[in-house]
Amino acid sequence: MIEILLGEIEKAVHVEQHEKELIAGLFHEKKYSKGDYFLKESDVCRHVGFVISGVMRYYINDDGEEKTYGFAKESDFVCNNESFLPQQPSRQIIQALEDCTLLIVGYNDLQTFYTSLKNGERFGRIVIEQVFVKTLQGLNSFYTDSPELRYQKFVKEYPDLLQRIPQYYIASYVGVKPQSLSRIRSRNTSRK
Amino acid sequence: MIEILLGEIEKAVHVEQHEKELIAGLFHEKKYSKGDYFLKESDVCRHVGFVISGVMRYYINDDGEEKTYGFAKESDFVCNNESFLPQQPSRQIIQALEDCTLLIVGYNDLQTFYTSLKNGERFGRIVIEQVFVKTLQGLNSFYTDSPELRYQKFVKEYPDLLQRIPQYYIASYVGVKPQSLSRIRSRNTSRK
Repeated sequence: MIEILLGEIEKAVHVEQHEKELIAGLFHEKKYSKGDYFLKESDVCRHVGFVISGVMRYYINDDGEEKTYGFAKESDFVCNNESFLPQQPSRQIIQALEDCTLLIVGYNDLQTFYTSLKNGERFGRIVIEQVFVKTLQGLNSFYTDSPELRYQKFVKEYPDLLQRIPQYYIASYVGVKPQSLSRIRSRNTSRK
Repeated sequence: MIEILLGEIEKAVHVEQHEKELIAGLFHEKKYSKGDYFLKESDVCRHVGFVISGVMRYYINDDGEEKTYGFAKESDFVCNNESFLPQQPSRQIIQALEDCTLLIVGYNDLQTFYTSLKNGERFGRIVIEQVFVKTLQGLNSFYTDSPELRYQKFVKEYPDLLQRIPQYYIASYVGVKPQSLSRIRSRNTSRK
């Protein structure tokens, strides 16, 4: 299981053999049943997760209405950085949409990762840069894109999730009611 | 001038004497007259700046209406990371509101900074984390806070800019017409 994470890290930086054992000691396996929360509203996000299997959903509860920002699936890191980095309460919620297996690392252990590995800081910088850009693009899309464009982006970014998660969550991501999503889907299908 | 930048870097990490000369060689002084652009719409952001003197404004042009995201002033870094990190065209515009003096570093020279300094990667990670959190908070505020709250946050975050920049730009940041800003200001003053 740790091999999948190590493979992901080695896409960005070189890792020495003895460092692999250190990494294996910092990350721990955690299982979430469908419906379990990785992060609840108002809790502080204390871990970064790496998804081995399953899908997690990011959303906020806006006066009773759930608004979906995004999803994390196999080989994605999962974290609310707005809460994790300053260790402040989260407005965002992260919930398992399927039974999930994650490798998680705590805040202090992640600092050990950064300082103890030769390329730890470099890996941290590269990942946070990637997550930063993806988060900015996601937020700007969330607030400014039309539902039609949101749907097209969803299909492009998460093609395998189309069949994997309930339509209700896709509609929430797109920003429409489920019945409107059906119309958007059929328009997009007829165009192909 | 480089001493101000070095002081800022040394708040986060230790810098060796010989590394200071390297840093001085990577950053270059650049002056912007009031009205000049640090970054134009559709251009790729190729530099990170560090403000020695003056104020810069971040905004987007939304169908002819300028929407102001934030400001950078003395000892702030200035950059549109959504454009700089992936080296893609910018939607955001960054413009000098006063005559400004910046120290700027190009994309490739910044990579040299990261790899050549003992703590270069660490500094890069720490700064990008801080900028990430500030950017997320700013974006969420931009899209969800009331004008009243935006004004209160402006006063708290940029107290010296209240007298320094035209009301027009403060109104644009708050998200109201200048005449509405006057009403918000007087309500906030009368509460004190």
